[in-house]
Amino acid sequence: MRRIEALGRISEERQRLTRTFCSPAMRRANDLVAAWMREAGMTVREDAIGNVIGRCSVHGPQSKAHSPQSARPSPQAVARSAEKVLLMGSHLDTVRDAGRFDGALGVILAIACVEQLRRSKARLPFALDVVGFADEEGVRYQRAYLGSRVVAGTFDPADLKRKDADGVTIAEAIRRFGGQPTRLKLARLDRSQLLGYLEAHIEQGPILEQENLAVGVVPAIAGQARLRFRFNGQAGHAGTTPMHARRDALCAAAEFVLAVERCARKRAGLVATVGQIQAEPNASNVIPGTATLTLDVRHPSDPVRRRAIARICDAAQRLCAARKMNLAVEVIQATPSVPCSRRLTAVLKRAAGKHQARVIGLPSGAGHDAAVLAGITPVAMLFVRCKGGVSHHPAESVSVQDAEVALSVITDFLMLLANEYE
Amino acid sequence: MRRIEALGRISEERQRLTRTFCSPAMRRANDLVAAWMREAGMTVREDAIGNVIGRCSVHGPQSKAHSPQSARPSPQAVARSAEKVLLMGSHLDTVRDAGRFDGALGVILAIACVEQLRRSKARLPFALDVVGFADEEGVRYQRAYLGSRVVAGTFDPADLKRKDADGVTIAEAIRRFGGQPTRLKLARLDRSQLLGYLEAHIEQGPILEQENLAVGVVPAIAGQARLRFRFNGQAGHAGTTPMHARRDALCAAAEFVLAVERCARKRAGLVATVGQIQAEPNASNVIPGTATLTLDVRHPSDPVRRRAIARICDAAQRLCAARKMNLAVEVIQATPSVPCSRRLTAVLKRAAGKHQARVIGLPSGAGHDAAVLAGITPVAMLFVRCKGGVSHHPAESVSVQDAEVALSVITDFLMLLANEYE
Repeated sequence: MRRIEALGRISEERQRLTRTFCSPAMRRANDLVAAWMREAGMTVREDAIGNVIGRCSVHGPQSKAHSPQSARPSPQAVARSAEKVLLMGSHLDTVRDAGRFDGALGVILAIACVEQLRRSKARLPFALDVVGFADEEGVRYQRAYLGSRVVAGTFDPADLKRKDADGVTIAEAIRRFGGQPTRLKLARLDRSQLLGYLEAHIEQGPILEQENLAVGVVPAIAGQARLRFRFNGQAGHAGTTPMHARRDALCAAAEFVLAVERCARKRAGLVATVGQIQAEPNASNVIPGTATLTLDVRHPSDPVRRRAIARICDAAQRLCAARKMNLAVEVIQATPSVPCSRRLTAVLKRAAGKHQARVIGLPSGAGHDAAVLAGITPVAMLFVRCKGGVSHHPAESVSVQDAEVALSVITDFLMLLANEYE
Repeated sequence: MRRIEALGRISEERQRLTRTFCSPAMRRANDLVAAWMREAGMTVREDAIGNVIGRCSVHGPQSKAHSPQSARPSPQAVARSAEKVLLMGSHLDTVRDAGRFDGALGVILAIACVEQLRRSKARLPFALDVVGFADEEGVRYQRAYLGSRVVAGTFDPADLKRKDADGVTIAEAIRRFGGQPTRLKLARLDRSQLLGYLEAHIEQGPILEQENLAVGVVPAIAGQARLRFRFNGQAGHAGTTPMHARRDALCAAAEFVLAVERCARKRAGLVATVGQIQAEPNASNVIPGTATLTLDVRHPSDPVRRRAIARICDAAQRLCAARKMNLAVEVIQATPSVPCSRRLTAVLKRAAGKHQARVIGLPSGAGHDAAVLAGITPVAMLFVRCKGGVSHHPAESVSVQDAEVALSVITDFLMLLANEYE
């Protein structure tokens, strides 16, 4: 919890927590996390995009004599998997005006787990890599999962030319951060060496609190699409252009926002959000000539999500036609629904069952690095209860007790996994 | 027209014209206008807030022998009005992504008029001051008419603490510009010395073009109110907060924008505009927790305008109650409808009648420095046709022919006014 506090103080804005990809604040966050990793005995490196990765060497035959009963691998198992790696972690970037637990909790729990293994002198028949991903939220470049995409080998090199609000490209941002934009391909992890990826994360929803449970297990991560809508009308003088002669882009945008809300309310489990809006020229005495909005749509079923987007696009076209405006729609990203590994999730459920009478499955409405990693290795996710289901907000909160349960569940998950190698 | 081009190239943004109060671009604009004034033989000063003022000395008994027939004052008239000053001009700041004529045309026409008087060796029984006001649009501080308010003595000293988007106060901006924020009171003009104020300005509407007329005369300037509405909901995660549990501030703002549009459409002559919108935290994957909007309402009748604002505020309160949100409303400024001087307007009509078969009166939907100056001296306004009625947009355009007509009308106005002193 002290580490959560310490990371939460590292922000690029005063008075509130905002830590975006490759910002100076991320530099400080990576350095602090790397220091904690080294304290925990890990060998630390930073990859080409700025993911911080700590390698834990609590495995191998040389220290087998010290391993406790519950995790003593056979010599065969050690030999078979000595090169294999289990990844654990989450992301270190945040949204704007963020809470302190989203992302950070998963990285800090993974480091705490390594410390606990060391203290208990446990040995594992595989290596552990703890990773703090450089970008999951996509705030700066409207492209999420930049960090895990590089690790999974699905980073699109064309994205290197994308610009932030100040015109700085991703390539330039990586370079300033100390990374190597020309070597991103080499940072891809070899899937043949990976055992899997485990991510602990706050639930960001109200179910665990309603069910009075500390943790839950994630069977699948909902598909998600991000689009950008640009309404083009005609700027004009707010005092001299009669109402009937206007083509006010913000009025069209307002109709659109309400159409999105209506569409999402019609279907259970569907969520649709306009999170960003920008009117141009954005002066109080000028009729907005253009309005640009983002749309975020999610549902565990991909066909449901796609139909909702089609309906929203139809509504946007109709209202633009009625207002004699032009519309430009851009799909920023679309990620399909991702199922977690049945095998790893079963092990995680058994580990959680040691600490809770009931273990429930909770599909994730939020996207996670695990969804990207699923492209190269089996993934499992543990959700941790958060107060009021609040996330992406300074009020984000996890109790010490629940964090302790999560830590025990993760540690037991590793022990159970180690035993499977017997 | 060359001067319009030259001023139009002075901007604080690349690719488009934006020149706000006390910006480095305004520094260059003031310096250029001051140079033109000196070329025209004027004595130039800059007052405490940064208005540039050129004094023209084509008056006085010593040069009476050279005055042409049409403008030869009697010795009595000269003695009576030797200390009197007629102000002419407009403003030098612009909106964002502006046209080149709004404001600039009035200042440049006034300077051209002085040059014409010099060339024709005309003499006037009063002094001429040409003024380029430092702020009329109010873009930087959401407070319009900063320049003319200082001249009229209605500048509110409390405004010195207002901050721009970067946190710079008006006082600090004036200081950096080279002005004297502590001496604004001393920059007030003495109403007993003023004969009146004449402002030429583009119409910013389509009527003159429809009527096929180069210029028109303004009988009154519509009242105008600017307000700020802040909708406070609850930020949250776009993927995990069910639709029914949301308090999305942008959805409330969208309802508000459409309510404003509906209200204004109901009443002829009423215009209402939401020009600025800001959602917070403004990230595509976060439900907006707050949305802040500006509202601009205008009508030539003050009671009509006030009733419209009351109805819009009621609608905002109702929709916030329905969405369980809080609303904060702030009146940024409210200026009543201002009638122009009957006497000066009659003279201006006679001058226009020399160049057009018909002279029509056009109430101004836009606010102008003349409305502020009306507090201390009689004012008159000449509207000049602009292409398509387009203003506050790069497509703003005035023909050379129409600018020539406007120049002749202004010059004849001065001659007629001089004759009245006989």
